[in-house]
Amino acid sequence: MSIITLTSDFGLKDYTVAAVKAKIVSSRSDLSIVDITHHIKPFNVLETAFVLNGVYSEFPEKTIHLIGVDAEADANQKHLLVMIENQYFIGADNGIFSLLLPENKIQKIIEIRHTLSMESVFPMKDVFVDIAFKLLDNKPLEEIGKTLKKVNEWKKINPVLANPNELTVHIAYVDHFGNLVTDLNKKLFHQFRKNRKFTIHASSTKINKIHQKYIDFSKEEMLVSVLKSNIGKAMAVFNSIDLLEIAIYKSYSEKGGTAEELLGLTVGDTIKIKFE
Amino acid sequence: MSIITLTSDFGLKDYTVAAVKAKIVSSRSDLSIVDITHHIKPFNVLETAFVLNGVYSEFPEKTIHLIGVDAEADANQKHLLVMIENQYFIGADNGIFSLLLPENKIQKIIEIRHTLSMESVFPMKDVFVDIAFKLLDNKPLEEIGKTLKKVNEWKKINPVLANPNELTVHIAYVDHFGNLVTDLNKKLFHQFRKNRKFTIHASSTKINKIHQKYIDFSKEEMLVSVLKSNIGKAMAVFNSIDLLEIAIYKSYSEKGGTAEELLGLTVGDTIKIKFE
Amino acid sequence: MSIITLTSDFGLKDYTVAAVKAKIVSSRSDLSIVDITHHIKPFNVLETAFVLNGVYSEFPEKTIHLIGVDAEADANQKHLLVMIENQYFIGADNGIFSLLLPENKIQKIIEIRHTLSMESVFPMKDVFVDIAFKLLDNKPLEEIGKTLKKVNEWKKINPVLANPNELTVHIAYVDHFGNLVTDLNKKLFHQFRKNRKFTIHASSTKINKIHQKYIDFSKEEMLVSVLKSNIGKAMAVFNSIDLLEIAIYKSYSEKGGTAEELLGLTVGDTIKIKFE
Repeated sequence: MSIITLTSDFGLKDYTVAAVKAKIVSSRSDLSIVDITHHIKPFNVLETAFVLNGVYSEFPEKTIHLIGVDAEADANQKHLLVMIENQYFIGADNGIFSLLLPENKIQKIIEIRHTLSMESVFPMKDVFVDIAFKLLDNKPLEEIGKTLKKVNEWKKINPVLANPNELTVHIAYVDHFGNLVTDLNKKLFHQFRKNRKFTIHASSTKINKIHQKYIDFSKEEMLVSVLKSNIGKAMAVFNSIDLLEIAIYKSYSEKGGTAEELLGLTVGDTIKIKFE
Repeated sequence: MSIITLTSDFGLKDYTVAAVKAKIVSSRSDLSIVDITHHIKPFNVLETAFVLNGVYSEFPEKTIHLIGVDAEADANQKHLLVMIENQYFIGADNGIFSLLLPENKIQKIIEIRHTLSMESVFPMKDVFVDIAFKLLDNKPLEEIGKTLKKVNEWKKINPVLANPNELTVHIAYVDHFGNLVTDLNKKLFHQFRKNRKFTIHASSTKINKIHQKYIDFSKEEMLVSVLKSNIGKAMAVFNSIDLLEIAIYKSYSEKGGTAEELLGLTVGDTIKIKFE
Repeated sequence: MSIITLTSDFGLKDYTVAAVKAKIVSSRSDLSIVDITHHIKPFNVLETAFVLNGVYSEFPEKTIHLIGVDAEADANQKHLLVMIENQYFIGADNGIFSLLLPENKIQKIIEIRHTLSMESVFPMKDVFVDIAFKLLDNKPLEEIGKTLKKVNEWKKINPVLANPNELTVHIAYVDHFGNLVTDLNKKLFHQFRKNRKFTIHASSTKINKIHQKYIDFSKEEMLVSVLKSNIGKAMAVFNSIDLLEIAIYKSYSEKGGTAEELLGLTVGDTIKIKFE
């Protein structure tokens, strides 16, 4: 069964998400619609990329992803159909396509040819769904538009090796639990680390271990502690997409505070890792 | 495939929306359930009407819309099945049916005959779903209840022509982006305008152009401006359902502020349009 | 058609809920996924139990419920598959299974045998979905893991009869409308009441009637009152799952205030019922 995913900054209180789904289910009953999220911060292309990168590889080939964030087209920002890892992404060329992983692996870029009905303030419904229907009907890509060579680039930020003993990483995302997710993945970390001891400096907090699971943190330090548990203490973990994450164990906003709140760090801020 | 839509003020944290879906999917697998929204302000009939009017025409004939807002019945507020544009709406007669577009186009009104199991504090599940099942089974409408001649009326507010040169419009809805959506549609605007110049007075802000798309606003005024872009400035647009909307370009609550916040206007407030 | 439900504290802004759905729809097209809620307070097992108990009996036999709250496993908290009323619940043994109704009716407990790929910080996706697939494939339960005799117990709190004339009940949940839902069900109330007059003492508010429906409260007292309606006044009702609930009629947070706000009571607080 075919799959269409929806990612937007529309929120869920208006009729907009339902309007997109209405158009899809009105003409197709043989597909699954999966909401990625509709809670992207308004117009936030970086956050959109982060969320899509966290999930799209879970979908099978030929999945069609509609991206309703900063989605209007003009002369500098065309509507594109982009193919990556045999999946389809449809959105405006606002930089998002340069941020999707794996980098430099874009297989195909099509500039969507507009018809009159596509001149719309609501392109996710009036343009992207129609293109999805063409893909589902196996129409040739030439019918959708002409092939381009490249997409608009968004300046990427990556971990920086200040010197052989110090790595600067960036907070790329703050999740629902207020955890600080960095741009450092597990593979790169071990490459820089070379089995050395290390200390993560997140604001004034120092952490010198990365746990396998959150729960592994819960009791092991009890042996050397009079505390009953580690609830409320800062810890590091590689999260479910293998990115280094700083969390406050089982703490949250209404009770104890999140990593974002307690460490005073947020998206764009840096964390240092020093190796001995 | 048949379609049932759900609109409510239930929010998503409780078990209520899931209970409605559970009852539906437990007995029918051959239909699509589409959430319109569950974030209507508690008991807010006007907002419910605005959201439903924004989307229902996207659905095909025979779609069944369940309305779980102020949904209990008593002597003055019966449970009704109402047919408009060959679609079905099921809810309590709290005024909502008089607000659905197109006005005066109600094809059929049925007062739902209650059985004992329908005496419930949760009519969306215990009454409306059962009626939807009868419709899906093509039961005759007489089996559902008796035909009525009219629904309870909610006092409508429409744009007012104070004099031939001044139109007063009302803010009917504030959307997820904090944009101010008025009750003036594009057709009526042009009818009043008669090709004259105009100025929109929204609080102390004056706007004398209505853009085709949000993004059209982004750069055109750069030619006469030293500003790098129009982000944060007030603009007007006809939105995706052709209603006049006042927005702050690409601004939002955490960054710069929304039209609702910056202009200090909200639902029920007025905006004036003066013609020369 | 088979049904899988999802309950979690993931929220909807991250990619996590979509990742679970992606894995399911990528390999199965012949089932329904129903979101119970993803807005459980972080790590809150009691709230998870309350919400699941409010809805699971609406689902048919063989429904599979995935519970993504405090879901990591360790030596003291295994991953379990538990069968209750011929439905399947999959989660971590954090106490949740001892709270599911009906008490003492657990039919089967299986400790899930982990494979290497199940060592994960994201067990809802990496463990629970795989077990759901085994159930859908009618694999024998022995293949999933070994049978256990009991689950970890969470200390239950129930209504307390202080003396024959006074019952102490607890607030078990505050719903989307800010209504205070207690742990007293209708059957138990009538058992204690024995047709006597009663007064509910919620904070300093006294209520001596329990209404059948919310709307029944709206006008009946107008006969003895100069007030136009009862909007904003405290009332009691047995809610849709037959639990005693204290509400402020048609009032909500932005307008008038909820029962939680106005009575200053929340989860864990007590309410007294005195019988004459």
